[in-house]
Amino acid sequence: MQSQRLPFDPVEEARRHWEARWTEKAAREMVAVTSIMRVHQILMARLNELLEPYDLTFPRYEALMLLHFSSRGSLPLGKIGERLQVHRTSVTNTIDGLERAGLVHRIPHETDRRAVLAEILPEGRRVADAATEVLNAAAFGTEPLAAEELDRLSATLRTLRAGAGDFGP
Amino acid sequence: MQSQRLPFDPVEEARRHWEARWTEKAAREMVAVTSIMRVHQILMARLNELLEPYDLTFPRYEALMLLHFSSRGSLPLGKIGERLQVHRTSVTNTIDGLERAGLVHRIPHETDRRAVLAEILPEGRRVADAATEVLNAAAFGTEPLAAEELDRLSATLRTLRAGAGDFGP
Repeated sequence: MQSQRLPFDPVEEARRHWEARWTEKAAREMVAVTSIMRVHQILMARLNELLEPYDLTFPRYEALMLLHFSSRGSLPLGKIGERLQVHRTSVTNTIDGLERAGLVHRIPHETDRRAVLAEILPEGRRVADAATEVLNAAAFGTEPLAAEELDRLSATLRTLRAGAGDFGP
Repeated sequence: MQSQRLPFDPVEEARRHWEARWTEKAAREMVAVTSIMRVHQILMARLNELLEPYDLTFPRYEALMLLHFSSRGSLPLGKIGERLQVHRTSVTNTIDGLERAGLVHRIPHETDRRAVLAEILPEGRRVADAATEVLNAAAFGTEPLAAEELDRLSATLRTLRAGAGDFGP
């Protein structure tokens, strides 16, 4: 959502309360977490607004791009969940949305009768490219951050992702 | 959620696809945004798990702390929405949850008959402090990031928050 502009930074005000009651260390950690929560909210609002003309939300866009880039144009739903690191029920909802929009369809697995695949349709590929052009042109909602800031941000977040066991040996 | 460990970093794989089809600039922006989305998910899972024994979610915790720190121990619901930068309906749900848990109650506004205040109860103050001790002890879920990384991260995210018009003159 577009927020109302406050005359002060609410995150910095929270920092002052934390430093007064607890430690500078705890304040630093709380500020980082609260900042990520708010920036996530800002980005979701910006991206969903850009994607709305394509009948997409950001989670649907991510799943569509995964299929777009897959070697066969199709993936088992379980694998989509692993790759996007979301629950099975979220994948089902996301693929339902893409199917209703006519961008993917479900097909049976060739050898595993219990598995279902999602396959991207030609219209899905067209929308994937068109939506990406729009997101790229809007810098994925990251304005006003500069290249160096984005790279440092991603590197720091990668350390946290690795620490959480998302990937690695 | 705790994800399954992938043998490769899915965000870096997406970067390679972006660089091959589009620009390095767009790839950098997509990587930053995708990293924030995933880290938000990791942090929410960690924090909600820590807060679960207190019947709190992170949004409820944020609202409870706002009341805990307010000069009168109470705030109009509209002001809570402004400060947490969330929609009116989210505030209603959040305060409903805190009220059911016996941590706050609703009271009428002294002068504005249309406005409703949420007031923190003594049990709410006790839980606010106890939950904060737990979050502080767990570094707010930010492990393994170091102090300098957290400060740089917060400064960069503050640039984006300011750019989005969250605060300022």
